[in-house]
Amino acid sequence: MADVVKRLAVLGSTGSIGRQTLDVVRALPERFHIVALAAGRNIDILAGQIREFKPKFVSYLSGGENNDNAQSWLGDAGCQFLSLEDMAGHPDVDTVVIATSGTAGLNATLAAVKAGKNVALANKESLVAAGELVMGAARQNGARILPVDSEHSAIWQCLNGERQAARRIILTASGGPFRDYSTAQMRDVTVEQAMAHPSWHMGKKVTIDSATLMNKGLEVIEAHWLFKMAIDDISVLIHPQSIIHSMVEFIDGSVKAQLSYPDMRLPIQYALSYPDRVANPGLPGLDFSKIDRLTFEPPDTSRFPCLRLAVEAGKRGGTCPAVLCAADEVAVEMFLSEIIQFTDIANVVARVLEQHEKVDNPSLEEIMTADARARESAVRLAGGGG
Amino acid sequence: MADVVKRLAVLGSTGSIGRQTLDVVRALPERFHIVALAAGRNIDILAGQIREFKPKFVSYLSGGENNDNAQSWLGDAGCQFLSLEDMAGHPDVDTVVIATSGTAGLNATLAAVKAGKNVALANKESLVAAGELVMGAARQNGARILPVDSEHSAIWQCLNGERQAARRIILTASGGPFRDYSTAQMRDVTVEQAMAHPSWHMGKKVTIDSATLMNKGLEVIEAHWLFKMAIDDISVLIHPQSIIHSMVEFIDGSVKAQLSYPDMRLPIQYALSYPDRVANPGLPGLDFSKIDRLTFEPPDTSRFPCLRLAVEAGKRGGTCPAVLCAADEVAVEMFLSEIIQFTDIANVVARVLEQHEKVDNPSLEEIMTADARARESAVRLAGGGG
Repeated sequence: MADVVKRLAVLGSTGSIGRQTLDVVRALPERFHIVALAAGRNIDILAGQIREFKPKFVSYLSGGENNDNAQSWLGDAGCQFLSLEDMAGHPDVDTVVIATSGTAGLNATLAAVKAGKNVALANKESLVAAGELVMGAARQNGARILPVDSEHSAIWQCLNGERQAARRIILTASGGPFRDYSTAQMRDVTVEQAMAHPSWHMGKKVTIDSATLMNKGLEVIEAHWLFKMAIDDISVLIHPQSIIHSMVEFIDGSVKAQLSYPDMRLPIQYALSYPDRVANPGLPGLDFSKIDRLTFEPPDTSRFPCLRLAVEAGKRGGTCPAVLCAADEVAVEMFLSEIIQFTDIANVVARVLEQHEKVDNPSLEEIMTADARARESAVRLAGGGG
Repeated sequence: MADVVKRLAVLGSTGSIGRQTLDVVRALPERFHIVALAAGRNIDILAGQIREFKPKFVSYLSGGENNDNAQSWLGDAGCQFLSLEDMAGHPDVDTVVIATSGTAGLNATLAAVKAGKNVALANKESLVAAGELVMGAARQNGARILPVDSEHSAIWQCLNGERQAARRIILTASGGPFRDYSTAQMRDVTVEQAMAHPSWHMGKKVTIDSATLMNKGLEVIEAHWLFKMAIDDISVLIHPQSIIHSMVEFIDGSVKAQLSYPDMRLPIQYALSYPDRVANPGLPGLDFSKIDRLTFEPPDTSRFPCLRLAVEAGKRGGTCPAVLCAADEVAVEMFLSEIIQFTDIANVVARVLEQHEKVDNPSLEEIMTADARARESAVRLAGGGG
């Protein structure tokens, strides 16, 4: 079936998306070959991945800090140390999976895009903070951004083969564990409660962002860049069962939806196999006899102000989305460390955004500066009681 | 927007689908132009349509019987009488809408297909009774069959842009007005009860077929021909809200669904505008705040034996589906005339099928013969008490 084996670089291979990417590769060895793996500090997991997939190139954070040891250790494994950026742009790589988080993800995304790669993008910050730069560079260099988020994958699948632009994108959201909580109830939620997402298993940051609906707001901004849709034409719909992963409404009123069990391996695999689909016994079809009902409700932005903050930052544009991202990252970290309360996440983000002076059409440097200042300001505000 | 106005022949213009086709043309006069109209005996409605759309060609049943009057009447209206077959194959026609019922539909479909037209097909009998002939002629002559049924339109929209065949087609069904009735309760239902379909407004025959689920069985056979899917890979799912019009499951486990309010103008318009979509203010998008829930249940073929009979006839192939169609047409007519009971429709069809000696790879003549004998046999069985 496969004409050519796709050669992959997986950046962030030890995180949730990275490990599930390797699950897909493991299931479809005739389709995908791992050329490069990059991780942060989870060296034990990475070492196991290196033994299994035998990549040519490897990167990890402590490698940069302790270069001599790293080089000898990698030499034993038969692979070469490369920076994330060099890996992302390497001629031996066809598709770069960006599953790192934060700023490291942005630089690697830009490197991959400038090298004209297929970029399977799971790093939200890249498009939220620097959508214009990333999409502009992709256009100039013939790179293709392939969404990995389940929502954006759903939209992409629904747009497949359509000749006209969509009229509306409907991003679905599970609503998170506090869907029915009052604001007063949410004030006292613990880290443990916030980490108990009803349908998806994800990393910590995304799980908290899902509980505040910040995650959905970031996805609105991502969808804006990926699908060239005005923010006003992107709506959010709470769908607690997480079976419909998003929908697209066309100009004739027809709506297409993509459905599956909540399993990130499907959107990951679709991004890697596109434009083909590939059978994977690990990904079963839906059993509708076990689906009781699909329900929908509008999101309540008074209880979930992070969604409103993100949509507003998306509409204001410029450096605002980068500031939103950075402030949220700090605020979530402080909530996880039990320095601030759950509802303070939105308060911190709101106040950082209020204090920010927007720069329009920002350069990468201006984005980085806005990001750094937003972090400082978030730390200060959160430290001062939120 | 429109590069070329599409020139349409609407066969069956006074029926439910025909009138809704003209609604679409009325809303989009810059896209579609009516060249030919054909009706049965609803001459008053046809006369109004002729005044409004000023077609070049017209056909109607009494015209054939009373040719002189017809010719002079049509001359006054400035249009010419043509047979259905000549109309369907006329060089001035781009797309033929087959919205007639029964055998007249089949002959016109074959004429349109042999002339290499785009054929917007609402006539179920054409594909159910003569799927192999119709699809074979379409391939040979470069004709394109464009489905008009909401279910097949949904599947077609979901398959758009996909490079691999589907793994499974999921045809949805409202379940009709007797979804929760026991067989005993169904025995006594009146014509009026059977005509009260919960979500769609349709002609009499289709409404009764929807109440017995025969309609869904015919759609399974149609889907088999339209999308080259094995009958075993087509499943039926009861979805009482009639919002999801059908679904497609792909080899990677991903499912796509098409949703809209139940309004036949949407699939009609899609068949006419394909591969484009066209904005039509008469076709609103879904308001999910008003959709309480979407539910699903498996069909019960012990209470709805017509579905099982149709699927079995589809699997047996040859002349069996033609016999199924013909026997059902007679049985429904006899139920509407209060000669047999609702549950006798399945009994008559089952017994006609039992008595039929299947012919494989039938010619048109063999299909016609099987059809005629099935009708005789159905009349005899129904007359004898079902």
